[in-house]
Amino acid sequence: MNEGGAAIKPVTVYDIAREANVSVATVSRVINNTAPVKKSTRERIMELIAKHQFQPNALARSLYKKETGMIGVILPDITNPFFPEVLAGLDQEARSKGYTFFLCDTVSTNGDSAEQYVRESQYLSILMEKQVDGIVMIGGRINLAKPSKELIGEVVEASKRVPLLLINGNLPGEGMTRVYADELEGAELATQHLIELGHERIAFVGGYKHMSNTVQRIKGFVRTMERSGLQARKEWIMDGGFSVESGKAFMNRMLALPERPTAIFCANDLVAIGVMKAAHKAGIRVPEELSLIGFDDIPYASNSIPELTTVSLRCYDVGRHAAELLHQMITKSKVSKNTKIRPELIVRESTARPPARTETASESTIEIMLKNND
Amino acid sequence: MNEGGAAIKPVTVYDIAREANVSVATVSRVINNTAPVKKSTRERIMELIAKHQFQPNALARSLYKKETGMIGVILPDITNPFFPEVLAGLDQEARSKGYTFFLCDTVSTNGDSAEQYVRESQYLSILMEKQVDGIVMIGGRINLAKPSKELIGEVVEASKRVPLLLINGNLPGEGMTRVYADELEGAELATQHLIELGHERIAFVGGYKHMSNTVQRIKGFVRTMERSGLQARKEWIMDGGFSVESGKAFMNRMLALPERPTAIFCANDLVAIGVMKAAHKAGIRVPEELSLIGFDDIPYASNSIPELTTVSLRCYDVGRHAAELLHQMITKSKVSKNTKIRPELIVRESTARPPARTETASESTIEIMLKNND
Repeated sequence: MNEGGAAIKPVTVYDIAREANVSVATVSRVINNTAPVKKSTRERIMELIAKHQFQPNALARSLYKKETGMIGVILPDITNPFFPEVLAGLDQEARSKGYTFFLCDTVSTNGDSAEQYVRESQYLSILMEKQVDGIVMIGGRINLAKPSKELIGEVVEASKRVPLLLINGNLPGEGMTRVYADELEGAELATQHLIELGHERIAFVGGYKHMSNTVQRIKGFVRTMERSGLQARKEWIMDGGFSVESGKAFMNRMLALPERPTAIFCANDLVAIGVMKAAHKAGIRVPEELSLIGFDDIPYASNSIPELTTVSLRCYDVGRHAAELLHQMITKSKVSKNTKIRPELIVRESTARPPARTETASESTIEIMLKNND
Repeated sequence: MNEGGAAIKPVTVYDIAREANVSVATVSRVINNTAPVKKSTRERIMELIAKHQFQPNALARSLYKKETGMIGVILPDITNPFFPEVLAGLDQEARSKGYTFFLCDTVSTNGDSAEQYVRESQYLSILMEKQVDGIVMIGGRINLAKPSKELIGEVVEASKRVPLLLINGNLPGEGMTRVYADELEGAELATQHLIELGHERIAFVGGYKHMSNTVQRIKGFVRTMERSGLQARKEWIMDGGFSVESGKAFMNRMLALPERPTAIFCANDLVAIGVMKAAHKAGIRVPEELSLIGFDDIPYASNSIPELTTVSLRCYDVGRHAAELLHQMITKSKVSKNTKIRPELIVRESTARPPARTETASESTIEIMLKNND
């Protein structure tokens, strides 16, 4: 071939395959001796490897070694932009160590969570059958505030057979290895930011109260309000969804109330976007008349107009740590059971000082503070 | 158990597993006789199956039959919201036929497309090793305007060993089975919409000219302009990315030009969102001063303010048809090689009549039209 000769870039499996006019798979089979390759082809490849002093990289090597080099990732819904971010970190780190991913999306087509858990069970079985080196679970049953014994049992059983790691969830009391963002601290950061801007009338909307992530966020919200002598008003805490549509519905419910907050802490960024849309439709300006803070810092948070202030759960770092830890588990190192990633406040354009108060607003605030001091 | 007795809902594998206090995998093993189960457990499960007259569903049955029931999906970047939509359709249809997915994300961590193609090759090999029932490829090498012989060869080779289907791409002349959105028609719809609103000064931004999807979109744009006696001005056709960031860059380059278009056709919705952000920053109102149309109809298109007018490639339907077709290929039915899905114009809020023309704009428009009639 004319383009042969002195290579400037290091030679890859791909270059060898191209020059030998075979597939990358064939080159790998020769390197790792995993499957028969025609003698003449084999010799041609060996010559090229010698000629270029080719060193197969970790990825190529491990993919065909005795370990499968495969990690299964079980997650609840790939269309939620939160998960691809975690995966990006997971992938970046795991790939450098020679692993390949299989993503197992358990999303229920009819919104039925029981169906989702069945799919989780099926994927757990299949991944073990396929002899993956490790399994990562994100979301689904591990986010339930009170998972059933059966749901817990299956995961614990699987973790005895294969290194298994939980991301952002837990099965309390089972001693599972997990990497998670500190949701409580994240909720405190969000609430504190609004209080520091001068807000006293703050709402929390979104999530599901049967899920541990929502429980944590509400707990952090209420605790931080109380620390500042403010009341988290019951009618301003709404749950029932993590979607843009649910965000619109929360805002519309809020608009129908006799009194409204000056700031809303949303359970995630998608809800915040929905709230922003409904506020815009109602002619309420964000942040001049209403401050909004999200949670997660999905890519879209910086794409909205105004850009969304939010709490980053540092998904990418969570994913990276998870891959690092799972690798240690697979290679039999001792690992720490709990790795907590600290969230980060990301101030953008959707939060500001509260608007100058109307008479009514001031009165009701005083009333709340008096109640609070009872 | 107390909650036993007359069931209202049909009994599922999950119910049997719960009542027998075993995992779903164990129930499946008993049903399909795929692995040994302790005799007492087996008997308990069999009794429950008889008691409830339980009929294992297609999913449970096929998962443990001789076919693996597994389909591998090789895609370029799960964080691009276009792909999850295709997957949702694919998943919905395939799941009803008893298949399970493994997603193989080939995204290159350093943006190097050569690395991406190596990963495609590796996943092709691994999926064949794991004996999946079928493979779906979306994006990557199959979207190249001129893929190399080696890149084509690997896919053709794989397609001889396992049912393999291409989504929204092609390897010309290889007779591959494929399902695709008609990009050319989509581009015509977008351009026609802008022309019908009265725009004559229209730009096209985004994509990569070495990719067939971009080539098709530009072709549809230019052709429709010419049909209406309008000129697609060279300096208003920009390529170089599919991201929000690239959209911002395109708009900033546009702002620096001596003359500006009144409407921009963006190669995808992410680019359109970037253009919208940069326009907003520059104080240009959308759609009053600048009309924007996207392409793809990702979920976020309806979340921006203003909501984005776009062309739906009907990703969900593309995915659904792909699953249907792949199932036919797996079950040895004769299938049609080409399934074309017709795109759909989705008019929202980002397009409107062009602003009243300034003197300069009118003059240059006349000049263009004169040139065009040369």
